[in-house]
Amino acid sequence: MTENSISINKERLIKDMEAINSNTATPGNGSTRFSYSEEDRKTREYLSREFKNLNLAVKTDGAGNIRAKYNPKENDSPSVMIGSHIDTVMNGGEFDGLAGTIAALEVIRTIKENKTDITHPVELVIFSEEEGSNFGSTTVGSKVMTGKLTKADLKTLYNSEKQSAYEVMQAFGFDADSIGEDLLQKDEVKAMMELHIEQGGVLEEESKSVGIVHAIAGMNTFQVTLNGVSNHAGTMPMPGRKDPLVGASKVIIALEEYARTQVNETTVATVGKLECSPSGSNVINKTVTFNVDIRDIEQSGIDQVSNYLKEKVKETAETQQLEYEIDLIGTSAPARLSDTVIDTLVAKAEKQGMNYLKLHSGAVHDTMMLADVTDVAMIFVPSKNGISHSPDEYTSYEDIEDGANLMLEAVIELAQ
Amino acid sequence: MTENSISINKERLIKDMEAINSNTATPGNGSTRFSYSEEDRKTREYLSREFKNLNLAVKTDGAGNIRAKYNPKENDSPSVMIGSHIDTVMNGGEFDGLAGTIAALEVIRTIKENKTDITHPVELVIFSEEEGSNFGSTTVGSKVMTGKLTKADLKTLYNSEKQSAYEVMQAFGFDADSIGEDLLQKDEVKAMMELHIEQGGVLEEESKSVGIVHAIAGMNTFQVTLNGVSNHAGTMPMPGRKDPLVGASKVIIALEEYARTQVNETTVATVGKLECSPSGSNVINKTVTFNVDIRDIEQSGIDQVSNYLKEKVKETAETQQLEYEIDLIGTSAPARLSDTVIDTLVAKAEKQGMNYLKLHSGAVHDTMMLADVTDVAMIFVPSKNGISHSPDEYTSYEDIEDGANLMLEAVIELAQ
Repeated sequence: MTENSISINKERLIKDMEAINSNTATPGNGSTRFSYSEEDRKTREYLSREFKNLNLAVKTDGAGNIRAKYNPKENDSPSVMIGSHIDTVMNGGEFDGLAGTIAALEVIRTIKENKTDITHPVELVIFSEEEGSNFGSTTVGSKVMTGKLTKADLKTLYNSEKQSAYEVMQAFGFDADSIGEDLLQKDEVKAMMELHIEQGGVLEEESKSVGIVHAIAGMNTFQVTLNGVSNHAGTMPMPGRKDPLVGASKVIIALEEYARTQVNETTVATVGKLECSPSGSNVINKTVTFNVDIRDIEQSGIDQVSNYLKEKVKETAETQQLEYEIDLIGTSAPARLSDTVIDTLVAKAEKQGMNYLKLHSGAVHDTMMLADVTDVAMIFVPSKNGISHSPDEYTSYEDIEDGANLMLEAVIELAQ
Repeated sequence: MTENSISINKERLIKDMEAINSNTATPGNGSTRFSYSEEDRKTREYLSREFKNLNLAVKTDGAGNIRAKYNPKENDSPSVMIGSHIDTVMNGGEFDGLAGTIAALEVIRTIKENKTDITHPVELVIFSEEEGSNFGSTTVGSKVMTGKLTKADLKTLYNSEKQSAYEVMQAFGFDADSIGEDLLQKDEVKAMMELHIEQGGVLEEESKSVGIVHAIAGMNTFQVTLNGVSNHAGTMPMPGRKDPLVGASKVIIALEEYARTQVNETTVATVGKLECSPSGSNVINKTVTFNVDIRDIEQSGIDQVSNYLKEKVKETAETQQLEYEIDLIGTSAPARLSDTVIDTLVAKAEKQGMNYLKLHSGAVHDTMMLADVTDVAMIFVPSKNGISHSPDEYTSYEDIEDGANLMLEAVIELAQ
C-alpha cells in the first residue's frame, strides 16, 4: 500500500461474511444458501440493514437481482458497478460469490467513510441464482438483467418440485411479471468489476495473492452417444465385439492427449459425465453416453478441438463398428474483457506493489453477461488447492483484502 | 436321422413351451417368470400334470428343485439326469432354461412311448432360481442340491423386499428347513446332461444347429477403483490434472487389446459396469469404479489376464497420479466336462449326420455345480444374433429338436 491510499476494513468484511455464512441449510457441512430459500431471505434482510446504514438507493428486480447505489453527487451519470452473487451450490463453500459481494460492499463503505471525492455513482450489484442450484441453469439473474433470459424462458425452467423459475420468484415476493421491463441500459453503467475466488489452482501455484482476468473462456459442450451390441461377457469372443465402452475410452484418451499437447496452453477438454447402459458386471454394454466440455479463450482453439472430437468419434465408430451421434448441446463464445479497465487494474496493482498475475478464467461468471452492455473486468483471489463448490473451499481473508483494495483503487479512478 | 432311430415330437415340445411362456408377469414384453412367483406356481402345476401322465416319481426339495424319475425297471441304479431351469430374468426370452427343461421332458416321453429298453432310470431335474432374479445370486437351486449353498447361506440372501431366500422358499410352500438333508449323492446319478441355448453367436456364425460343450470357462471378477482430484472442467489446466476417467480409459483399452491378442482364443475380458462420480458435465471426476470380468477355459489364461490387469492398473495409477484399489470380488475355476459323455455325444452326432460343433461355454450353468458329483456335459443350440436375456431371444424349434434328439440318443446309450 502506498502511504496516501485508503483501504478497506478487513475485520468488518470478515464480520459480514461470517454473519451471512451462518445462514446455511446444512450446518456443519458447508454453505448451502440457494436463491429464494429462507437462508437467502435472512441474507437479504442482513444486507438491507447495511444498505440502510449507508443510505444507498436500493432497487430489486423481478428475479431478485439487487442494485444498491451510492451516489454522493446525486447525479444521473452512469455508475461504476461492482458485485457478485450470494447463492451457493448444495454443500458449497464460504467464499464463492459472497467474497465478491462483501468486498464490493466494503469498497462502497470505505469510499463513503473517507468521503472520497467521486463524480460517478458506485453501484453494488448482487445477482440471483448464479449457481443454477434451483433450476439447473446458471447465471439466471445476470441473464435476466441483460435480457438474455425472458419471462417466457423462466416459465420453462423448473426446480425439482416442478415449480417454474417464474413461479418461485413470484412466490418469494419478487414482481416476476415486471421481468424484461427494467433491463440494464448502456447509459446506466460505466464499467462493471467482479471480485471472485479463482476456483482453480493457478494463483496458488504461482504464489500470487491477486489475479487480473484478461479473458474469459468460451465453451462448446457436446453429447456423444456410442451404440454397440450388448452381449454376455462370457459368451462373446473378443474379435467381433462391438463394445461402446472400448470406443468411448479411445475417444477420451485421444481427446485428452490432443487438448494437452496440440492446441493452446489455455485449451481444456474434459469428459466428466459418462453413463454406461446396461452397466452390468457380466454384460458388454449396448450404449455409452458422455459429455465433452471444451473451453478456450481463443475461439480457434475451441473449434480445433471440436473438429478433432468429431473426426475421432467418427473414426473410432468406424474401426470399432459402432453407431454414433454427436450433438452440440451448449456453446458460449470467449468474452473480451475491457482493456481500459484491465489497464486501470494493472496500473493500480503496480502502484500498490501488489503480488498479482494476469490470467484467464475458465469458468463463466455473471460479469460475462454484462460484456455487451458495458466495459467488464474481473479480479480473482486464490483458491486453496484449487478447490471450490465444497465445504473445503478456502481463500485467506488477507488475499480477499488485497483484491478488495485493488478494486477500491480502480473504482475511485473510474468514478472520477 | 438314421432310419431306425427314434425321435422326439417337435409339436408336443412347442405346445409345452408355448403353454409355459403364457405364464409371464410382463405380457407383450418378454417372459418374466421368477422362481417363487405366481407364474412359477402355474408352471409347476402344468409340469406336475405332465409328470402324472407319465407316472414319474417326483421329489421336490426345500429350495423347490424338482426331480422327476422315469424308472421302468424299478431298480436302484443311478439315474441318467437331464434338465435345466424354468425361471427367467425380468423381460427375458422364451428359450433360456425352458428349452432344456422341455427337451428333457420330451426325451423321457419319447423313451417311454417307444418302450425303449433301458436299465438305468432317467431323471428330469429342474433347478430353481438359476438366474438370480430374486436374490442377486445365480444358480441357487443347483448349489443347494450339491451343498454349495447351505440353509444358513439362504438366510443371508435377500430380495428387494428384504425377505431372505429361506423365508421366500418357506412361504412359497417348500420345506426350507429340510435344506441340506437331501443333497445329491454320487451313487444316485450316473451322468448329467443339460441342453441350453448358447447365448452367444458362435453356432450361428458357423451355421451349426447343435453344439457339444467341451469345457466351461472359469472366471475372475475384479472391482477397480481409481481416485483422482475433482475440479472444475474450465479452471484446471490440462497438465497436472488427476483425472480417473482418463486412467480408467487407458486400462480398458490396454485390457481389451491384451485379452484379444496376447492370451488364448478362448480368453475374454470385459468392462461392463462402470460408474463415474460425481459424473458432472463440467467437473473432472473424483472417482471411477469399474468391474473387470475375465474368463477362460484355461486357468492359466485367467491368471495371465488377472496379472496383466493388476500391473496395468498400478502403472496407470502411477503415470496418471491416481490412487487405486483392486479387489477380487468373484472367482470360479474352469470346469472339466466328462470325456465319456462328450465322446458319446460326438459319436451319436456323427452317426446321425448332425451339423454340430464342439465349443466351450463362456457362461456358468447349473450343470457346472454337479461336476464334482457326476459326469457332466452340455448341448448348446444356436441363439439368433447371439442375443439372450431379452424379448428378442430366439432359437428355432428345428434346432431345439436336433439338440433334443442328440440328447435322446446319448441318454439311451448311457442308460443301457
